[in-house]
Amino acid sequence: MSTREETLHEHVEFWLEELAADRPALAEWFDGLSETDIAFTLESLPLEERLAVWQAVPPALRGAVLVELHDEHRRSLLKAAPPDSLLQWLGRTDPEDLLELMDDLPVQLGRRALRRLDQEEREQLQAALGYDDDQIGRWLSFKVITAEAETPGRVFRKALRETGVPEMTDVIVLVDDNSRYRGCLSLDTAMKVPTQQPLSQFIDAEINPLNPALSLHEGAQAIRNSGWSMLPVVDENGTVLGRFTASDALDVITEEQERQISQLTGGGLEEEDLFSPVRRAVPKRSVWLGINLLTALLAAWVIGQFEGALSQWVALAVLMPVVASMGGIAGSQTLSLAIRGLATGQLGSANVRSLIRKELLVGAINAVLWAIVIGIVASLWYDSFVLMGVIAFAILVNLVAASLAGVAVPWVLSRMKIDPALAGSVILTTVTDVVGFFAFLGTASLVLAFIG
Amino acid sequence: MSTREETLHEHVEFWLEELAADRPALAEWFDGLSETDIAFTLESLPLEERLAVWQAVPPALRGAVLVELHDEHRRSLLKAAPPDSLLQWLGRTDPEDLLELMDDLPVQLGRRALRRLDQEEREQLQAALGYDDDQIGRWLSFKVITAEAETPGRVFRKALRETGVPEMTDVIVLVDDNSRYRGCLSLDTAMKVPTQQPLSQFIDAEINPLNPALSLHEGAQAIRNSGWSMLPVVDENGTVLGRFTASDALDVITEEQERQISQLTGGGLEEEDLFSPVRRAVPKRSVWLGINLLTALLAAWVIGQFEGALSQWVALAVLMPVVASMGGIAGSQTLSLAIRGLATGQLGSANVRSLIRKELLVGAINAVLWAIVIGIVASLWYDSFVLMGVIAFAILVNLVAASLAGVAVPWVLSRMKIDPALAGSVILTTVTDVVGFFAFLGTASLVLAFIG
Repeated sequence: MSTREETLHEHVEFWLEELAADRPALAEWFDGLSETDIAFTLESLPLEERLAVWQAVPPALRGAVLVELHDEHRRSLLKAAPPDSLLQWLGRTDPEDLLELMDDLPVQLGRRALRRLDQEEREQLQAALGYDDDQIGRWLSFKVITAEAETPGRVFRKALRETGVPEMTDVIVLVDDNSRYRGCLSLDTAMKVPTQQPLSQFIDAEINPLNPALSLHEGAQAIRNSGWSMLPVVDENGTVLGRFTASDALDVITEEQERQISQLTGGGLEEEDLFSPVRRAVPKRSVWLGINLLTALLAAWVIGQFEGALSQWVALAVLMPVVASMGGIAGSQTLSLAIRGLATGQLGSANVRSLIRKELLVGAINAVLWAIVIGIVASLWYDSFVLMGVIAFAILVNLVAASLAGVAVPWVLSRMKIDPALAGSVILTTVTDVVGFFAFLGTASLVLAFIG
Repeated sequence: MSTREETLHEHVEFWLEELAADRPALAEWFDGLSETDIAFTLESLPLEERLAVWQAVPPALRGAVLVELHDEHRRSLLKAAPPDSLLQWLGRTDPEDLLELMDDLPVQLGRRALRRLDQEEREQLQAALGYDDDQIGRWLSFKVITAEAETPGRVFRKALRETGVPEMTDVIVLVDDNSRYRGCLSLDTAMKVPTQQPLSQFIDAEINPLNPALSLHEGAQAIRNSGWSMLPVVDENGTVLGRFTASDALDVITEEQERQISQLTGGGLEEEDLFSPVRRAVPKRSVWLGINLLTALLAAWVIGQFEGALSQWVALAVLMPVVASMGGIAGSQTLSLAIRGLATGQLGSANVRSLIRKELLVGAINAVLWAIVIGIVASLWYDSFVLMGVIAFAILVNLVAASLAGVAVPWVLSRMKIDPALAGSVILTTVTDVVGFFAFLGTASLVLAFIG
């Protein structure tokens, strides 16, 4: 844990103690804390205490703090605020922050806040609001340095001293006299353009603008691959809408990461807040528990087909979870590779067959190895050579099937435009459970019929 | 899939076809591809084909391509290269790239490459090599603009036109006449410092340098929270070692994300390459399969304690996986929240008790709900009220235990300095399996003893 996190945790501890002792929350608590710090500590507080502390946040900071909060936290605090005081904070919020909050504001209030902006800002915001939640056009920032393409180097540099250079600026955008996009050059180059020569002669064809319809993921990757702090966002008509920065890319990737942790640990269909209200958490999780019940009942049904064998031979009941669980792990290992390959785009139709071949080979070698080990353990435990053969065969079948399913399940899901990280794991374990129980109990039934 | 990924996939497809037809790999294939593109496509190729294509990469590009590759890919290609040709590429690699490759080079070769640098570069690299793999000091870049603190605004700007402004530069670092760190100011401010006034009068106390001993994770978070493209890295003696940029932060967060996917899907203890050699993949995965076997045998042993009940009542064998699996899912939901809270630092000793209380409440409500549903399903399936009671009770116990373990397991692991994302899931499912089987079969045994 970093020093910053430790310090913030001391705040949380202090606030919890104060509130527990029934002392009111005070505006002074926030002295020296940035918006990010305040957002972080609010998110660390249980629901009731969070509302109490939020009432004490100085109104001038509230807009900026709201922007830093995760969606769910933000909504819960917005809901608790009376509309009039909301409008008052929003008046002190800058247009980019307002753009971020817009979706979570009551519609009427959003419109009123828009009307308070000057015309240029309002037009920028309205253009951005025309894009989807998942498109970079929706999350623009507006601090782009644009220059008329024919501006001479010296004039440009003089103007730069007056307008200034916003943070994350290493690219300058050139427009023609109709304000249409002409091209980019680096700040570095722009600083060195000879006094009398126009900037347009130094356009860098390798700096490409982003299309506002790009997904957030693609936008973040484009920034990462470009090596620049920012790229301009330009629509089909050549209008420079704004910019997308490395800071935006960091936010996008961090949020993707948080979403993936939730999804992969089976945490539920949606992101959830550490202290989200019980009445929201229960139904969200119930959905996932319900889906799991259906798959578990399917596995139970398969087991139920072999009640005869189970009642004759109790060792089958004892060992069957071992067969299913080894298949589940082997499958997850392959699934993990395939999901990552699909996410980075490195796994595609050109190489999916090569991956299946490799995974089947790795799976088969491990299958033989663990079939032998588990066969020996089982034969020692129950002193039965027949059981050894049956379980070894079942492990072999299930581990090979798991390797195949580990590539096939995410591949088919991604062709169906379903995120394999979300549903892949549930489907895969269902496959390995069903195959495992079927192979183990089915073989045992055949053997019993043959012997008996 | 973005256009870039599609285009690159066409390359992969074309190359695979060419090689399959036994035509040799050609240097022309790389025309118009950047280092990142080449690295991406190499990683998408199966092992044998990758080596064939790598031989055709123009030597001048090889160093830069190696830097863009993931560790495992990089090592496999370095191993395949004769030392002499290696040294030849390294001569054309810039110092920052050399720093990244150093750990993967044979020691002798690394030393020879260092000797070829000029003295300043060599000293910078040696300082960086003194830090750990996980510290930002080890992964510095050196393109920092430093200025003597008393430089007047006009002189600074004139110098800037000559030295230029590297990408990701929005912060200027000031040093005293012994080259010791004095402070920072934004490029924006530096552009506006009046002609005759020294830069030092405009130092921005809110721009803080990073300590080289900071972990990569902390460094990336610090950049993200700062909102700047870069921060200088300064050691205890005030020596400016280099800078850490938003681009570095993007790389760190992306790699963390990839590692987490591997870990959470149980993919194994370490990151693995899409086409890593079978002889490396098999032992890596075996370790994890072995650990799983131990936990599965523990669960089997618990089941084995109730052989009597199982052989009397076959429905127990059919339904017991349902009890275990519902507990596993409920536990994972809580685990996911707790792991995320621990990773972001929002979960700490101040609020862990609040989280346990909330999770127990959510868990208990869902436990009651699903105990009823599953009880009804079981009683309909087997037409037995006794079975309904037994399974409902077991679900209730297991789901509540799962909620508690979902917070307790990652909490204890993190206190023991073990990454909860790595081991949390295995331990948790072991707990829910054991508790589930014990509650279900144990209750059934008691009931059988009572009835029978």
